[in-house]
Amino acid sequence: MYPYNAPINEMNFLLKHVFKAEENWQQFPFIQDNLDLDTAMAILEEASKFSSEQIKPINANGDKQGISLENGKVITPNGYKDVYKDFAEGGWVGFCGNPEYEGMGMPKMLGVCVDEMNYSACNAFALYNSLTAGAALCINAHASEALKHKYLPKLYSGEWSGAMAMTESGAGSDLRHIRTYAKHLNDESYSITGTKIFITAGEHDLTSNIIHLVLAKIKNSDKLSLFLVPKLLVNEQGDVSEPNNVAAMSVEHKMGIHGSATCVMNYDNSVGYLIGEEDKGLACMFTMMNYERLSIGIQGLANGEMAYQLASQYAKEREQGSTVSATGEKVPSCMILQHGDIRRMLLTIKTLTDAGRALAIFTGLQLDRAHYLDEQSGKQSSRFAQLLTPVTKAFFSDRGLECSILGQQVFGGHGYIWETGAEQLVRDSRIAQIYEGTNGIQANDFLSRKILADDLSCLKEFIGELRSNISSFTNVPSPYISQLNSGFDQLINTAESIQQRVAILPAAMSSCSVNYLDAFGYCIYGYFWLEMLHHSDEVSEDFRIKKAYFCEFYFDQLFPKSNFHLQQLENLDSSMLNIPEDCF
Amino acid sequence: MYPYNAPINEMNFLLKHVFKAEENWQQFPFIQDNLDLDTAMAILEEASKFSSEQIKPINANGDKQGISLENGKVITPNGYKDVYKDFAEGGWVGFCGNPEYEGMGMPKMLGVCVDEMNYSACNAFALYNSLTAGAALCINAHASEALKHKYLPKLYSGEWSGAMAMTESGAGSDLRHIRTYAKHLNDESYSITGTKIFITAGEHDLTSNIIHLVLAKIKNSDKLSLFLVPKLLVNEQGDVSEPNNVAAMSVEHKMGIHGSATCVMNYDNSVGYLIGEEDKGLACMFTMMNYERLSIGIQGLANGEMAYQLASQYAKEREQGSTVSATGEKVPSCMILQHGDIRRMLLTIKTLTDAGRALAIFTGLQLDRAHYLDEQSGKQSSRFAQLLTPVTKAFFSDRGLECSILGQQVFGGHGYIWETGAEQLVRDSRIAQIYEGTNGIQANDFLSRKILADDLSCLKEFIGELRSNISSFTNVPSPYISQLNSGFDQLINTAESIQQRVAILPAAMSSCSVNYLDAFGYCIYGYFWLEMLHHSDEVSEDFRIKKAYFCEFYFDQLFPKSNFHLQQLENLDSSMLNIPEDCF
Repeated sequence: MYPYNAPINEMNFLLKHVFKAEENWQQFPFIQDNLDLDTAMAILEEASKFSSEQIKPINANGDKQGISLENGKVITPNGYKDVYKDFAEGGWVGFCGNPEYEGMGMPKMLGVCVDEMNYSACNAFALYNSLTAGAALCINAHASEALKHKYLPKLYSGEWSGAMAMTESGAGSDLRHIRTYAKHLNDESYSITGTKIFITAGEHDLTSNIIHLVLAKIKNSDKLSLFLVPKLLVNEQGDVSEPNNVAAMSVEHKMGIHGSATCVMNYDNSVGYLIGEEDKGLACMFTMMNYERLSIGIQGLANGEMAYQLASQYAKEREQGSTVSATGEKVPSCMILQHGDIRRMLLTIKTLTDAGRALAIFTGLQLDRAHYLDEQSGKQSSRFAQLLTPVTKAFFSDRGLECSILGQQVFGGHGYIWETGAEQLVRDSRIAQIYEGTNGIQANDFLSRKILADDLSCLKEFIGELRSNISSFTNVPSPYISQLNSGFDQLINTAESIQQRVAILPAAMSSCSVNYLDAFGYCIYGYFWLEMLHHSDEVSEDFRIKKAYFCEFYFDQLFPKSNFHLQQLENLDSSMLNIPEDCF
Repeated sequence: MYPYNAPINEMNFLLKHVFKAEENWQQFPFIQDNLDLDTAMAILEEASKFSSEQIKPINANGDKQGISLENGKVITPNGYKDVYKDFAEGGWVGFCGNPEYEGMGMPKMLGVCVDEMNYSACNAFALYNSLTAGAALCINAHASEALKHKYLPKLYSGEWSGAMAMTESGAGSDLRHIRTYAKHLNDESYSITGTKIFITAGEHDLTSNIIHLVLAKIKNSDKLSLFLVPKLLVNEQGDVSEPNNVAAMSVEHKMGIHGSATCVMNYDNSVGYLIGEEDKGLACMFTMMNYERLSIGIQGLANGEMAYQLASQYAKEREQGSTVSATGEKVPSCMILQHGDIRRMLLTIKTLTDAGRALAIFTGLQLDRAHYLDEQSGKQSSRFAQLLTPVTKAFFSDRGLECSILGQQVFGGHGYIWETGAEQLVRDSRIAQIYEGTNGIQANDFLSRKILADDLSCLKEFIGELRSNISSFTNVPSPYISQLNSGFDQLINTAESIQQRVAILPAAMSSCSVNYLDAFGYCIYGYFWLEMLHHSDEVSEDFRIKKAYFCEFYFDQLFPKSNFHLQQLENLDSSMLNIPEDCF
């Protein structure tokens, strides 16, 4: 079994040189007194140790053993319980949590690094933490003081965990069809009844209580409200008391993430507490959903990193085939790393993953600025974070599957059998494109809500910001700068042309969205490659040389995909929407 | 569980109208007296019935149950044994087999249709037949009369099965490292000793004997010879007698094709019979390998078809989201088939699969012409079949995975769980890109052996042939004809430029091969779309309308990928080969 080594040096480079973490942190209340870069790096070293020494070892068995449901109780795979206990005690669950309620208060740009490590080490395990942190974020943002005091400390400490209960059998992408309902019991509580499906971590044995955030309709309303529904009721003293009729009816058999409990949950007159206002639950839930969307994006990113580590190591060990040296001599036997096609695959994984990490930390920074700065100063960052959330979710997870498949291919036949972990990575990666809103839904959100509904203003502002940064990039090949600027122009032109098209035929939006998101993703990865190259000599000459090789590969081979997707959009007319149903 | 319905109408269209099967068959000895189109269609109807009613029902359970190894015996999943018996009795194993030895003697262009159905219904089950037919093909081509008489009838009848034993732990893509050795015993037999890995159908309980074709080195030679090594020895009367020390040591745990027995095989002084000449085994084995490569390509094609059937049916059943009609009215609830992004996915699967089927049958026709016509008349077809073999293997299987993933995506969360079969299809599809020579190896074979080593002559001849056909296409949009002709020009230009580059730096070949094969694939799919469109009004006006929609989607959205891959090659320089090892 191959090890996992967290890419600490890359993270250090991005935090210190590319995104000037310390300069930013000095502007943030609480953070400014509690964090400097040395401390941050010491924290990441600890996270690295935990992910490689504790989480990674339970990954392969968790896949084979899976979870099981016995008498209504979900049993997680061997080791999960002990590792989760240590993980919680290490403070990792409440890592970015509100310090007023005993969270660690760490910035998100550090949080995304820790998340990446956890997912690289074990997708299924990391999900339990992700749901808990997301639920806490939502409670912190929208719940009453009483609920926050009662629930947040135990969520941040990892003693309890969280779950997000939205989907029903007839209500997936389309939440209007939700049938779970709530009845008013008294001033502070409601009675919740309904069945939810695909509930990640809805039931398990890692924590003493599970806090469900449940979307339901209050009788006679067709709008959604959000409720906090604990698995076990919590008494005045804040301790768990009797059961609350929250039960897992079954667990799903899935392609991957076998260690993650995906439950059909039944709520039967369960007591729930309103979060936010009645009929305004969806907006509250979006706080959690946006958190989870970035988190699931990072799952994809993390899998790209793991795929690279597996495949590059194998490529250096596996001797197969012959090659010809640069001077024309026949080399009768060589490592497969010498073959051009193996390099093509490894470089694809590497350049997508490195740029993805830059975008992830950049997005983390926007979330931090939106959170810590005053409304005026943080406004632009908040808008950028909203724009980028569907991109990180969809583009990272699409590239995550692509990279996992390429990594598996490097192994040849050995990649298809269990032993190397390459095939598990593909199965685990696949879900990230589907859950938390399919990537088609993300693309629709991106194009329709974040771009068109905003009359392209945030898109233009974001691109304008990147453009102005480019002008300061020194020592970066000027052809790449031209390509990037032309890519930006084309992104805006195409968005304008889609805008005109959709004004005439609204249904055309969904036929454009995935290609547009892909075009945007490949283009801004180009920006981050240049930004990384620009800062790379601050590390060392060797580091710069390495980054220059990768940057060249990215611009020659992958950056042109941005333009290709825009070309597909240009070629698209409405005829595909007119094809009669019976032709399919 | 969704049913499988063989695409009989599409097959009929291709055989009858596009490839004029009957005209061709009238030129083939044996076939001309035994087959007309009505008979062929009746045969395909039978195959359709068998695949949907008998093979499909064992597919899902076979995946869950898998194979097991007990006391050296491999147990196949429930139902496999009975269905295989019926399958063999139906004459399907010897379908294209030599009638001189009791094969059915059917043409390959019909064989590929039957193969597609079998794979669509169950990948793992169809492999047992594929290996048997391939082994028989090799024996028929290269073995002595005595061996043919003894083994072929029982292989064609399905009483015995075949296996191909090449790979060893240190010898995968690179067969030079094979360590299995052979010692001369007497005039007709050798003693074979060694261990082979990843042997599909190396051991199982479907047939009373298993005939292994084993690559080994005769002592002191570094060249490979091919041996027929039966699991049980066969006596003078042609009946099985004592065991031959051919044993499965273990079976692999794999990502998919769980019903297929992938064995580590041990040969311990097993008796083997030389096929062909000493030290010339690789050339003989290539007869089987080429057969298997096309077969594995068809596995990918078949999975695209199955993905389409699953996803299009779900898209017509699943109600989710709203849309806006062409006249601007809000439609509050609709089938997901109405969403542009769902159509984009379905049309991608459909247009890749339909064109793939045309190429498969075209390749079958080339093999038939090479086999049945005299050497002079069949020569060009033989060359075309050689050129196309790696393309069918790699391009079909790459698109097969792509289509399976797109199909799964249409299902949303329901695609990730076992119940719909969409996730099994992805896991089963994944192997086709890896075994029978990874797709990187196929691309190297295509570019290096089939194009460059041939000084581009077969490539130019093939493209010239297609070009001359285009001139007869009537009622086909002329912009597509221009695009296709320009695509052909670019394919040749790029091949010439790669030729120059590789003359200076031979190692550059492998960095170009995959992109070149992809460019070729997308381009000739464009040709087949036009050829189909040209013939479509011979069926009906409705059929033509449908094909015209698909053809438009293909040319607007997917055909440009050909040019994109060529652009990637244009951007490629040797720097990726110069990146020092420690940068990875």
